[in-house]
Amino acid sequence: MHPLTLDRLRAVSTATLTTVLFKKGFRNTFLQNLRPLNPKGARLVGPAYTLRYIPAREDTDPLTAFEDRRHPQRVAVEECPAGHVLVMDSRNDPLAASAGNLLVTRLMKRGCAGVVTDGGFRDSPEIERLDIPAYHQRPSAPTNLIRHHAVDLQLPIACGGVAVYPGDVMVGDAEGVVCVPRDVADAVAQEAYAQTLYEDWVEARIFGGAGLFGLYPLTDPDLAREFTEWKAHNAVRYPLLDK
Amino acid sequence: MHPLTLDRLRAVSTATLTTVLFKKGFRNTFLQNLRPLNPKGARLVGPAYTLRYIPAREDTDPLTAFEDRRHPQRVAVEECPAGHVLVMDSRNDPLAASAGNLLVTRLMKRGCAGVVTDGGFRDSPEIERLDIPAYHQRPSAPTNLIRHHAVDLQLPIACGGVAVYPGDVMVGDAEGVVCVPRDVADAVAQEAYAQTLYEDWVEARIFGGAGLFGLYPLTDPDLAREFTEWKAHNAVRYPLLDK
Amino acid sequence: MHPLTLDRLRAVSTATLTTVLFKKGFRNTFLQNLRPLNPKGARLVGPAYTLRYIPAREDTDPLTAFEDRRHPQRVAVEECPAGHVLVMDSRNDPLAASAGNLLVTRLMKRGCAGVVTDGGFRDSPEIERLDIPAYHQRPSAPTNLIRHHAVDLQLPIACGGVAVYPGDVMVGDAEGVVCVPRDVADAVAQEAYAQTLYEDWVEARIFGGAGLFGLYPLTDPDLAREFTEWKAHNAVRYPLLDK
Amino acid sequence: MHPLTLDRLRAVSTATLTTVLFKKGFRNTFLQNLRPLNPKGARLVGPAYTLRYIPAREDTDPLTAFEDRRHPQRVAVEECPAGHVLVMDSRNDPLAASAGNLLVTRLMKRGCAGVVTDGGFRDSPEIERLDIPAYHQRPSAPTNLIRHHAVDLQLPIACGGVAVYPGDVMVGDAEGVVCVPRDVADAVAQEAYAQTLYEDWVEARIFGGAGLFGLYPLTDPDLAREFTEWKAHNAVRYPLLDK
Amino acid sequence: MHPLTLDRLRAVSTATLTTVLFKKGFRNTFLQNLRPLNPKGARLVGPAYTLRYIPAREDTDPLTAFEDRRHPQRVAVEECPAGHVLVMDSRNDPLAASAGNLLVTRLMKRGCAGVVTDGGFRDSPEIERLDIPAYHQRPSAPTNLIRHHAVDLQLPIACGGVAVYPGDVMVGDAEGVVCVPRDVADAVAQEAYAQTLYEDWVEARIFGGAGLFGLYPLTDPDLAREFTEWKAHNAVRYPLLDK
Amino acid sequence: MHPLTLDRLRAVSTATLTTVLFKKGFRNTFLQNLRPLNPKGARLVGPAYTLRYIPAREDTDPLTAFEDRRHPQRVAVEECPAGHVLVMDSRNDPLAASAGNLLVTRLMKRGCAGVVTDGGFRDSPEIERLDIPAYHQRPSAPTNLIRHHAVDLQLPIACGGVAVYPGDVMVGDAEGVVCVPRDVADAVAQEAYAQTLYEDWVEARIFGGAGLFGLYPLTDPDLAREFTEWKAHNAVRYPLLDK
Repeated sequence: MHPLTLDRLRAVSTATLTTVLFKKGFRNTFLQNLRPLNPKGARLVGPAYTLRYIPAREDTDPLTAFEDRRHPQRVAVEECPAGHVLVMDSRNDPLAASAGNLLVTRLMKRGCAGVVTDGGFRDSPEIERLDIPAYHQRPSAPTNLIRHHAVDLQLPIACGGVAVYPGDVMVGDAEGVVCVPRDVADAVAQEAYAQTLYEDWVEARIFGGAGLFGLYPLTDPDLAREFTEWKAHNAVRYPLLDK
Repeated sequence: MHPLTLDRLRAVSTATLTTVLFKKGFRNTFLQNLRPLNPKGARLVGPAYTLRYIPAREDTDPLTAFEDRRHPQRVAVEECPAGHVLVMDSRNDPLAASAGNLLVTRLMKRGCAGVVTDGGFRDSPEIERLDIPAYHQRPSAPTNLIRHHAVDLQLPIACGGVAVYPGDVMVGDAEGVVCVPRDVADAVAQEAYAQTLYEDWVEARIFGGAGLFGLYPLTDPDLAREFTEWKAHNAVRYPLLDK
Repeated sequence: MHPLTLDRLRAVSTATLTTVLFKKGFRNTFLQNLRPLNPKGARLVGPAYTLRYIPAREDTDPLTAFEDRRHPQRVAVEECPAGHVLVMDSRNDPLAASAGNLLVTRLMKRGCAGVVTDGGFRDSPEIERLDIPAYHQRPSAPTNLIRHHAVDLQLPIACGGVAVYPGDVMVGDAEGVVCVPRDVADAVAQEAYAQTLYEDWVEARIFGGAGLFGLYPLTDPDLAREFTEWKAHNAVRYPLLDK
Repeated sequence: MHPLTLDRLRAVSTATLTTVLFKKGFRNTFLQNLRPLNPKGARLVGPAYTLRYIPAREDTDPLTAFEDRRHPQRVAVEECPAGHVLVMDSRNDPLAASAGNLLVTRLMKRGCAGVVTDGGFRDSPEIERLDIPAYHQRPSAPTNLIRHHAVDLQLPIACGGVAVYPGDVMVGDAEGVVCVPRDVADAVAQEAYAQTLYEDWVEARIFGGAGLFGLYPLTDPDLAREFTEWKAHNAVRYPLLDK
Repeated sequence: MHPLTLDRLRAVSTATLTTVLFKKGFRNTFLQNLRPLNPKGARLVGPAYTLRYIPAREDTDPLTAFEDRRHPQRVAVEECPAGHVLVMDSRNDPLAASAGNLLVTRLMKRGCAGVVTDGGFRDSPEIERLDIPAYHQRPSAPTNLIRHHAVDLQLPIACGGVAVYPGDVMVGDAEGVVCVPRDVADAVAQEAYAQTLYEDWVEARIFGGAGLFGLYPLTDPDLAREFTEWKAHNAVRYPLLDK
Repeated sequence: MHPLTLDRLRAVSTATLTTVLFKKGFRNTFLQNLRPLNPKGARLVGPAYTLRYIPAREDTDPLTAFEDRRHPQRVAVEECPAGHVLVMDSRNDPLAASAGNLLVTRLMKRGCAGVVTDGGFRDSPEIERLDIPAYHQRPSAPTNLIRHHAVDLQLPIACGGVAVYPGDVMVGDAEGVVCVPRDVADAVAQEAYAQTLYEDWVEARIFGGAGLFGLYPLTDPDLAREFTEWKAHNAVRYPLLDK
């Protein structure tokens, strides 16, 4: 991965990323219907480490299931590498918890970059106060074992209706989470960073009273020249821009 | 429109409006499942200016679609009159954005009174900070073109399961949005304002320890007299009341 | 009921309660898809007083329905005992209001412990500011009579997909609401309180850098000894613990 | 009840009934999303006998529950009067069965007029072959006790989103089921029977090549005259018509 | 339009059409969740004539609405050209009828090629017996006016989640309905017809015991040669094939 | 596996199986919301061979994807052993096809016992006529690649909300499909076969006019004796009964 990729992704919005990904042919990259528990916290950026759930069954999911040190949910929490994001395929089912406060705290202490489920977390009021980005569908107090059986790690999964492969780069902001396929992560990061600079300029112009036509998209040659100049004058504010 | 209608609507809640509209025979006036992005901001009040989306199609919605100055979404943003509310029929579909921060900012700068979609906005964290009331179903980062084709303006539409005709008066508070049919807007505003005064008195009484019976609804003659007196003493607090 | 049961329940989370209830064989105790209107307010704890709605019908639900002092919704608000929680079966339907600000204020003034519906409240911005815990699915401005007919009181009902019998103990926190069957309330409260003490210790250990294995669940004999000591030293912080 | 009411209802469609009920102010009378198991069988007509389910709970719904002769589901099957329709409020939940083949067979043998649930039946292939009209949402093999607790009989209930009071007249055809409030059953039956005669005439005219205008609705005076004559000539085909 | 296009479309399945359309870049062409009322009847093929519904409102949709000869629903039924398909945007809402037996009979008598709604038909048992292809979501007895207001004709609409423009070619079989954009209809018909010939050959081979590899898709050169020969020998069975 | 297990399962209904499984503690064994395409065909009985889909992505799912002989969907069709049932986890998504006629025909020719998806099949009218049991949610014409990426084989999956492990025994009838965990298959088959004998007797008695009490469940000692005798006399009709 390009050394600036993660920093660039930290500086762009999920909305900008979906546009850049759409330009590269990817239509389905935004994890649908997830919310940040701590929307004012840090940005989520990191490669995906995946955990898959299937429906629980009374024989495979007794109360003693967690005593087994090979239980994939617990292994995930202890082995997801620092800087990575634990992404859980909970089959979009928030009727029981995907994980709770103690496990998320452990991920935070281990230096993981975030945690995402398309189900729900329990102890959500505590998780809201932790210093690790977390995304889910809605709070869910019931204990995991009632509906979810952790079955394997590091396989390609579905999360929020999107394919997530181990190593894909997850990016989250207060709006939600985008999955950037690893093979295009460098190019997407570079292009999204450049796009952000352009959008900053457009935003300033619109706040200054400009209309959309010719400006957004930038089809007016005079405005295009103006943007080139602005870019030259403001380069210092965008240190991660590709030269 | 009566000169006090918009001011009166600014002073009443959407809950009160649905009651008054029900008394006039209208059962379906509350746009279902929409949320304000900035619930602590100003009230939404203004006539509807409508934009209709149908599903996008690969031939009608290329990446260059927005370069066309006749694109109805962009025309809507530039032509929705000041004081009006842009209302979008997004078929209750939040899987891609109905609009984003730059367009909503432009609406704000042009003096529009608000923006409503039954889909979702992208750049929702930025929109939350703008000084224009905005309502949607949930945040939606994916770019508009993936699912939505802006097809026409100023036709009657559906929004949140409710019929919205151009010129109907949209009223929003922290609870949601009501559509007041234009032909009854004056009468509804007057009656809702009077109803609000009554509910203020009821609320004060209940905080003072009164029970519901005879008070709400006002079937007790003694309480009715008491209310008449209270109304006379407090008229100055309700300057928009019909004499 | 044991004299400490309600106080103990006030000190434990809904997540812990679902675990303890699952140990006793109860899988379906968390009211699904409800949210607190005032999540930073007091905890909800109290026995259930139930109200049942069926769909409204034009002949049974005229505008004058509330003038009848036997209307079950109004009777519920005036008769739900102090310390009890009014729980409404609204058939999971938030398309019209289950109740509004004036009724919830009256419940608060009468000393009720809280109010729960699996539909929606109107006047939700006002209810958010009241000093009584309230839970619903989402705000709903339309007047009750449009969809809901209050039909009877104090029967077993469904709420949020869970069976609620009059007298069952409702417990709510910022995550949601659990229904504790009355017959097991004492045992559940005691066990959940003890479980909370254990989880506090685990949380402190994890913040201190410990891993999950052997700790959670507590299968390591050394850690078990350590916990026993910690418990002895911290007993004073847990005055409701069973001796 | 008028002696011809049930026979008239047997001769009209659910579609015609919803129109007549709408003319009397009733908007919500068609049980939504139910299907006949035996659409080519007899028509469903009879007064409602109601059974209410709430969610099952492990303590109230053990495997031995049905050994209790007071179990409301079994009492319903043994006590629903001949000629009546057993209507079950299953909270629109088909994840477990409302009843199965043996119980429906018993209802048939006891002379009941039909059985309706807004959940699902098990043994549906057998029920399809029985000579009793049955309606549900979809087949559901899981045993009742997993999700449904039969709680009481002969109370007003919700079924398919519609209020059903004991004694309301249920009418079903291959399209679905309508609930006719008992107080208007005579008038509705008479009017629907007359409306059916008119629609038969319209249908014949349209098959003969006529256009809709003036005919449906009948605003053309010449056509109105023609209909009067046709009615006089065909009276014998409509023996239940009010003289 | 090419003179063979409609005949070719009559000879191909909706499944084949979605594949050919996907090859041309169209991903969203199958109207989701619709069913044929008369699956064993004729194939649906014809250009779309569109009708749009928005939610009904008490003031715009009185019982007398249909007396107005300009009512768009009735105009649609009288003006949809012979050979065309009436396609209705009912906002995917089957809670009240989009149309009923009498209107569909009139369409049939006028020579229309079919009728499609993403809501539901009333009188569905009668429509099942008519000699005109009809598709809907599910039967719906309630009268149209309760939820649907016919607002305009021949505009682009959404139906079953797909964009339908007037003149697009609707094709339906026992599986459902595909919308073929008019600009690609000739090319799609030709290609789908050729693809059908290939699939017939593959099907015969598989029934004869062949495996999928090399055959489907046709990557094996020997099999490709065999197919070329088969095609030459069977040309007479495919009279619409492009020479 | 016991040599009579598959034959016994062929002789019992899915409803009976869910009851027997519930007695053994399994609550969630019926694949929800699936329908047989050919309900009058043979019974589905056989061990599960699993295929998992995740959402498609433009880079992993080009039109040429099926040219790869390692494509898991095609490998599944060629390698699912004779007598086994291909079970597909399509994430309950019928918006594009899980498979079509040609693949299902190949499975049939290879001697597979059936095919199950919680999505939808394309070419469903052709599949209805094949001599292999097939179950899905609803017909779905769009080509697989639009939404589904076949990712791996023979892992535990979810199907219709139920956990399915390779080797679990799938049993389907006209009502739907049950997954019998392999470890209990022998015991469940034996017990369900015996239960079927009892239910046959109960059914005969009810057709003969008997009431439910004492009979179903069998709590009356006289009836129990009668059943014992009936069983002795009818043993020949139940050749698979355990001696």
